[in-house]
Amino acid sequence: MSQKATPFARSDFSLFRHIPTRWMDVDIYGHVNNVNYLSFFDTAVNGWLIEEGALSPATSDTVFLVVETACQYFAEVNFPDTVHAGIRVARLGRSSVTYDIGLFRNEETSACAQGRFVHVQVEAASRRPVEISGRRRELLETIRFSGS
Amino acid sequence: MSQKATPFARSDFSLFRHIPTRWMDVDIYGHVNNVNYLSFFDTAVNGWLIEEGALSPATSDTVFLVVETACQYFAEVNFPDTVHAGIRVARLGRSSVTYDIGLFRNEETSACAQGRFVHVQVEAASRRPVEISGRRRELLETIRFSGS
Amino acid sequence: MSQKATPFARSDFSLFRHIPTRWMDVDIYGHVNNVNYLSFFDTAVNGWLIEEGALSPATSDTVFLVVETACQYFAEVNFPDTVHAGIRVARLGRSSVTYDIGLFRNEETSACAQGRFVHVQVEAASRRPVEISGRRRELLETIRFSGS
Amino acid sequence: MSQKATPFARSDFSLFRHIPTRWMDVDIYGHVNNVNYLSFFDTAVNGWLIEEGALSPATSDTVFLVVETACQYFAEVNFPDTVHAGIRVARLGRSSVTYDIGLFRNEETSACAQGRFVHVQVEAASRRPVEISGRRRELLETIRFSGS
Repeated sequence: MSQKATPFARSDFSLFRHIPTRWMDVDIYGHVNNVNYLSFFDTAVNGWLIEEGALSPATSDTVFLVVETACQYFAEVNFPDTVHAGIRVARLGRSSVTYDIGLFRNEETSACAQGRFVHVQVEAASRRPVEISGRRRELLETIRFSGS
Repeated sequence: MSQKATPFARSDFSLFRHIPTRWMDVDIYGHVNNVNYLSFFDTAVNGWLIEEGALSPATSDTVFLVVETACQYFAEVNFPDTVHAGIRVARLGRSSVTYDIGLFRNEETSACAQGRFVHVQVEAASRRPVEISGRRRELLETIRFSGS
Repeated sequence: MSQKATPFARSDFSLFRHIPTRWMDVDIYGHVNNVNYLSFFDTAVNGWLIEEGALSPATSDTVFLVVETACQYFAEVNFPDTVHAGIRVARLGRSSVTYDIGLFRNEETSACAQGRFVHVQVEAASRRPVEISGRRRELLETIRFSGS
Repeated sequence: MSQKATPFARSDFSLFRHIPTRWMDVDIYGHVNNVNYLSFFDTAVNGWLIEEGALSPATSDTVFLVVETACQYFAEVNFPDTVHAGIRVARLGRSSVTYDIGLFRNEETSACAQGRFVHVQVEAASRRPVEISGRRRELLETIRFSGS
């Protein structure tokens, strides 16, 4: 992502999560601070996994840890806005999954920010990588990007 | 609030704001960290003021600064839950306004946490207190608690 | 705390914890947002408990949960400032402990904010209150306020 | 950064900023949440700029906005740990500056996480990019990485 990416469109995604901003998200420059966008990433992905029954963070034997994040920022978000996070699987490896995430401000159709979010599935106790299989892999396949 | 308060009921409020929790709100004990509840307070109050056209934080000549907060915690909140924040004006002084805030978890009818949130209206530049009057006072009167 | 308290002095405390502010602590009004002060409270108290060997949050059978917080704000804090948090035990009950906390900005001797922070010791698994005894009670006694 | 990078060593940096973790940085998995690492980035960079007299966020006519971030995570950080953030300028463009940032846990010599943080200098009012020159460019040159 070292070059300026083309902003995603809403039509690049079929799955969206909705995240209203909070008062304290806004920093001294009068816009949502860059750090909070990363929170929209893991809120979107983990919220979806939990609601689909694919993750129970307190009790699952295997969980997903973040090994890489990246974000490009195109336009400012404010409070109160609602961020619509589109998520899709860009790459599904043996034990890792790379998500593309596009953030859309309110009703806008071009992403205000976008990035990559990489999870590795690990055994919760040992933190050792574990192959993604069964129900979880099937679920991830449902939002897999098959190319344009 | 040095004694254990009786939890508010939803029927104690006529105005509610809805705040979904985020993944990172949850701490090592597996519940939303106590600090984030305060963020629900100012998100609820300021979000309402802004949407009602009574506050424009970047441009208003007079703004509201927090001078006191208090919160009691009755039950744990998790991710993904939605917090429903009931707000009412408990006291409307010359330049200050004290809000009662009840936080309700998902569809629960008894507050999981509640507290007090005190704003003082100040001139943005000088931080000097300014009387609350006109449109703002009228708006605050609409959610004023008149006693039971 | 419904009346304006007299700000604590540094001499009211013998134990201090040092917490530098962060860029994103500052909100649109150009000062550290009220919510973050609560984070200074639990960072100060839990940091001390952990460094004293009295708490291991991931493995202790009994942990401390927050049941009440309160904060009054006297003066603004900015970035980069360092907050010096004075902590003392105001009340030590059977299973609960109430801390007085004074926050001092950089080298200032009068508190910029102060409050109360109440922990209840519970069994981690059941969340049932457990009497504070032994090593933990002895440690808490060392910072107990004996009156003026 | 799509491949696993080699962790930075402390010797890759001459400038360090020190950031203690906070209680609420830790998430349900018992480690500092990935989002907070980004806060260490902007706290390190902006704290340095402010202390060097090169930025006054509330009053400077030109400020720095974040247009890109990226982070790779190698090892977990906990509370209470201190993060030592090494920062250097990887690329100094006309109006943008790309920082390499290495985060080191306590006394460790190999980075626990590292990333890239890209600022664009803009006119505060219009958000239009402005050439980085004079004192600011000189300051940035002092931590410019000249290659290995």
